[in-house]
Parts: sequence; C-alpha cells; structure tokens
Amino acid sequence: MQNLDSQIIRPTLLLDKQKCLANIDRMLAKAQRSNTRLRPHFKTHQSAELGEWFREKGVEAICVSSLKMAEYFADAGWKDITVAIPVNVREIDLINELASRIQLNLLVESQETIRFLQSELQHSLAAFIKVDTGYQRCGIPAEATGSLSLLVNLMKESDKVICKGFLTHAGHNYKAADQEAIHKNHSKAVLDLNELKDVFRKEIPDLEVSMGDTPACSISEEFYGIDEIRPGNFVFYDLMQYVLGTCDENQIAVAMACPVIARNIDRKELVIQGGGVHFSKEYLEADDEGTKLYGSIVRITDHGWSEILGGGFLASLSQEHGIIRCSDELFDEFIVGDLIGIVPVHSCMTANLMRSYLSTQGEWIASMNSLK
Amino acid sequence: MQNLDSQIIRPTLLLDKQKCLANIDRMLAKAQRSNTRLRPHFKTHQSAELGEWFREKGVEAICVSSLKMAEYFADAGWKDITVAIPVNVREIDLINELASRIQLNLLVESQETIRFLQSELQHSLAAFIKVDTGYQRCGIPAEATGSLSLLVNLMKESDKVICKGFLTHAGHNYKAADQEAIHKNHSKAVLDLNELKDVFRKEIPDLEVSMGDTPACSISEEFYGIDEIRPGNFVFYDLMQYVLGTCDENQIAVAMACPVIARNIDRKELVIQGGGVHFSKEYLEADDEGTKLYGSIVRITDHGWSEILGGGFLASLSQEHGIIRCSDELFDEFIVGDLIGIVPVHSCMTANLMRSYLSTQGEWIASMNSLK
Repeated sequence: MQNLDSQIIRPTLLLDKQKCLANIDRMLAKAQRSNTRLRPHFKTHQSAELGEWFREKGVEAICVSSLKMAEYFADAGWKDITVAIPVNVREIDLINELASRIQLNLLVESQETIRFLQSELQHSLAAFIKVDTGYQRCGIPAEATGSLSLLVNLMKESDKVICKGFLTHAGHNYKAADQEAIHKNHSKAVLDLNELKDVFRKEIPDLEVSMGDTPACSISEEFYGIDEIRPGNFVFYDLMQYVLGTCDENQIAVAMACPVIARNIDRKELVIQGGGVHFSKEYLEADDEGTKLYGSIVRITDHGWSEILGGGFLASLSQEHGIIRCSDELFDEFIVGDLIGIVPVHSCMTANLMRSYLSTQGEWIASMNSLK
Repeated sequence: MQNLDSQIIRPTLLLDKQKCLANIDRMLAKAQRSNTRLRPHFKTHQSAELGEWFREKGVEAICVSSLKMAEYFADAGWKDITVAIPVNVREIDLINELASRIQLNLLVESQETIRFLQSELQHSLAAFIKVDTGYQRCGIPAEATGSLSLLVNLMKESDKVICKGFLTHAGHNYKAADQEAIHKNHSKAVLDLNELKDVFRKEIPDLEVSMGDTPACSISEEFYGIDEIRPGNFVFYDLMQYVLGTCDENQIAVAMACPVIARNIDRKELVIQGGGVHFSKEYLEADDEGTKLYGSIVRITDHGWSEILGGGFLASLSQEHGIIRCSDELFDEFIVGDLIGIVPVHSCMTANLMRSYLSTQGEWIASMNSLK
C-alpha cells in the first residue's frame, strides 16, 4: 500500500475510516441505551459512500440540510429523509418529485407555509414543527403553545401535511462556554420537548420529538422521552468540538494535508498551499487578546497523522495561502515540499469546500460536490 | 425576457454584466494612462466565460492563484498565465505539462525551489521572485537585496528558470484603516520595486516588476516604472471594498438572491436559505462592539437589484441558514417565499462557493467549480 505522502499533490482532506466508524458505533450505542433512534445528519460528510458506512450498521433514516442534498441521498437509495431547514417554497417541484418516491419529512414554522404546501403538494408528507428551545435562529418558542396549537390545528385540517411532531436544534451548544452550559441547554430542550408531548399527545397520537446536536449528544446521557437524535458533526468531529470538550483528540477523524510552499526564517512562519477556499475562514480565539486560530498542527504519517503538535498553529488564511506560526523546533522540522497536517476548526465547512476525501488507506471518496 | 424572480429557486449569485464590463473598462483605461499592462487576476471569477469579456477588450495575459486554475484557463485558450503563489513543487508534472503549451510564469522565493525546478523542468519557463513590501505573508523583504541577489544569481546560472523580475502583492491594503493607509502602502511598494529595478537592471536586462491589488489599483494613479498590475476583485467589487472606499456602491457587480424561509416577528428577523456554504463566513465589524456583518440588504428587481437598504443587515450565518436583522419597516416588506438580495462581504470567497452565476439578463454562467 502506497504511503500518503506519495499520493498527495495539493491540499487534501484525509479521512481516517477507523476513527469514523468508531464515532458512528459510539453514537449508535448511545442511542440504543437511551432508547432513541439515531437519525444522523449527513450535511457534515455529504457523501453517499460514507452514508453506506451508516447503512451497514443498520441506520435507515437520515437528516440533511437542503432539498438538493435530500435528492442526492434519495438517488443513493435512502428512503426516509428529514430536511432540517424550514421549507423553501420555491422548491415545490423538487419537493413533489421526492415525496413521490421517498418518505420526505419537512420542517414548517408558519401558517403560510402549511397553507402553501396544502395547496401545492401532489402527495401527502410528514412535517415537523420547528421549535426553538433557546438557539434563537428559527422556530416557534417551545413555551408558545398557543402559536404551536395554531400550526397543529392547521395540519389536522390538511390532508397533505401530516403533523409528525416537534423538532429542535440547540445550535447555541456550539458556542457554549463549557460543558455545564451544554448540559443546561440540553436539559431545557429535553424538558421542553417532553412538555410539548404532554400538551399535544391527544391531538397527535403518534407524535414524535426530534433533537440533538453533536455537543449535547456527545456528552449527555439524558434523552428521556426523546424519539430521535440528529447529530452530524460527530462523524468527523473537529478542533471546535475538541476545545468544547465534547470529543477526544483521537476521535477526530479528518485532517488536512497541505504542501509547504515557503518558509520565513525571520518570523518562523511556514507558508502552505491551503487557504480560505480549502478550510473556510472559521476560527477559534486562541487567547483573550483575540488571536485567531484556524487549525492545529499534526505530522502526516504513512497512513494517518500524529497527535497535535505544540509550538505551532495555523494563524492566518487568505484565498489560497495559509500561514503557520511556529516555534524554532517546529519550524526547523519542515522544508519546502513537505506535507504538514492541520486539524480543521470546523469539519463540516472544510468538507463542504474540499468536496472529496482521501482515506488514510489511500482510497479517494467522493461527495455530492465532487467535480464529476 | 423572464424576470429574475421567476428563475430563482435557491440561493443564486447574480451578476450584472454591464457593471462588470464597466469595471473592466475603468481598470483598462487606468492601466493605459499609467503606461502599464493589466494582467487581471482571475481567481475572483474563476470563469472561462468571464475571461472572454476581458479577451474581447484586448487582454492577453492573466494571473491565477493555483496551478489547477492555470490549467483550466490554459484549456480555455489563455497563452500567458502567471501563477501568483509560491511554487508547490509537488505539482511538477502539471507544471511541465503546462509549460509545454503556454507561457507559464511561476513565483519563487527560495534557492531550494529554484534548484528543484532546474533539476525537474523539461522546458524553460519564466519566474518572478516574490517580494514583500509590507504584507508579511510571503516573499523576500524588498530591502533584502543580498538575499534577492542570491536568487537572481542562481537563476542566471540556470537554463530552465529564467528570471523575469519581481512581483509583490500588498494584501495588507485589504485591512487598511483608510485610503491614506492604502496610498502609503502603495507608494512604498512602487518605490521598492523601482529601487529593485535600479539595482538589478544590469543583471536582468528585460527585468519586469509586477504589483497591484484591487484597493490600490482602484484609488491610486501612481504607477511610475510599474510594468504590470494584477488586481482581481475589481471585476465584481464587494462590500469590503465599498467600506474601504475603493469602489462606489453602483460598481458592485454581484449580489446574492436568497429565498426567505421563515420570519420571527418578535425579534424582527428574516431567516433566509443562504449560509456559510454560500457566502463563506467572512464578515465586517459593523460597530465598535464587534457586531458582525455578513452582508448588506438590497431588493431584487426584474433585472438587477436596488440600492443598499438601510434598516437591515445579514447578522449571522450557520451552514445553510442566514439571519437578517431588520427594522420594523424592512421586516414588514418581506414574506416567506420572497427573494431578498444581499451584497456579499467578499465576492471572491462567495463566487468560489457558489460556482456559477445568473446574469441579470437571465443567463447562467459556469465557472471552473461548476458541477458538470
């Protein structure tokens, strides 16, 4: 088997399949012992081939973040797909096409959208009402049972839009100060959804509640009454999750490999080919002075990468260049032409930009964004 | 002709060809009266079709930010291409392939790279030495004439790597505090390059100096002794340039059109389909408290967009969602299903993610990243 170094020409997103499979196993085991269904969010990897790794472990229902992504995975054989973003009514033709061939679950949060769907749908489909338990991005506040009743009643009158229950996403967990804050957000969401179940159980006999972001699903064991969880990022994890304390370093299943293209000995900086068009410009603050950190450094090995190296970090990105600020020792270790590994801050955004993966065993893996 | 509203289903990058052509004309006129060559940077649009708009106006030489981009434009018929990033030696096979069929100009800044090229090139090619006039990303400091001499002498001994001259990029102009700072950075770069011309004129008879970012090339008239300028972003401009004062609002040639998918009446927020995977996560600081601004709001018209609307801005982005914070008036103007227009912060990053354009006349335009 060729080593990675001999296969890599330009910035490449490495994927460690064993770590990835272990991440899937761990989340499946948690779902099982919590008596809930894992409906993994596929927006992180966007790859039919990675989807098969889940299917082989018995996963049958998935979540996506756009209708085009639902189409891609429907074409790959998935039959039960939730599109976890409020309906874009302009996509009605594709909604009708997909609803004719799979169990398509949509997200609604307004009477206008429900009325539009009732008028334009050619097939009945299930819809969750988006509920806000504190993120304040979208959804009806969980406490606003009056507003929620209006939507439930409208769907009860509809023969096209079947109310499936309530769905929430605690996106504020990604910006939580610490694990305690994540537990607190999560407990509130679990409580909110259970209260909604109590309130609406009579009106919606098969009511389901759906929740679950990677931070909470990684560290909590509290899923009482929750019918399904929808984490996505856990399949890869990343530096953001590591800093949040929601994964171990050895659970991070992706790393970028970038060629060193220049060295500045005065500033002890390595310049890599690898910029905002590869990593995205997501960053973490490395200190109280607002120093931006775009990734941590690892050594590329024959079939993987090392532990995170102290003494250096990805300190800035332009469109195609990245600058790694180094200690003297780290600087001396790399020459022009070497590969350097970088653990990305946000694997979802990096994977979306990179469009394909190279497994640490040397196999190229496509995504829905790969150039054909 | 169909109006835009009836053609747009999901987030779409609109391109106003007339504004774009006017931007090209203005920069060509400036180059002409400054007695310098315009070698436009094509990393901003990454589109063969847009390239033709330049070619029709007489442009024959271009600049790109990666060797793959050079290959794409070589395939589109361009014969003189500078790759404005230090050589990634791992790409030697593609370098040799391209050098066999076009005038390929590379960028070097180390003896190692020159020696590598001398050993591995099958064809001779031209190389610029990357010079740093203050950006501190890469390149040899312009003052370090000793270090520059070493590289020049190494190339004089080489029959493969022909020294073409010196190239600089004043990327710090993008973060300049004001126009005065841009003029100051630019004057230093012009002076530095002219001094290098004086020092090395005897050793390199046909020595050229190349410079020019969009901010400086937009507002300066000072190009004495400069052989070519390489701005890229000016073809579209964007909110960052507008805030810098380097373009007028009506020169911004791109805007995103995004469907409204939800409304929050309590917070006066519109939720759009349009997130980090469409815009990138580049932002401007809207005030001294660090409020992030990811785009300004415009109304989509039949064949274009309005002036920037007060009373609202794109305030946050997740992977697929965007949140627009609104005044009461602006909020009341939009319902679910409407399109809302957004002037992006950084058009290069947005165009890279969007991968294609819809002209305001209703024609789809591909880029090198378009899915085939």
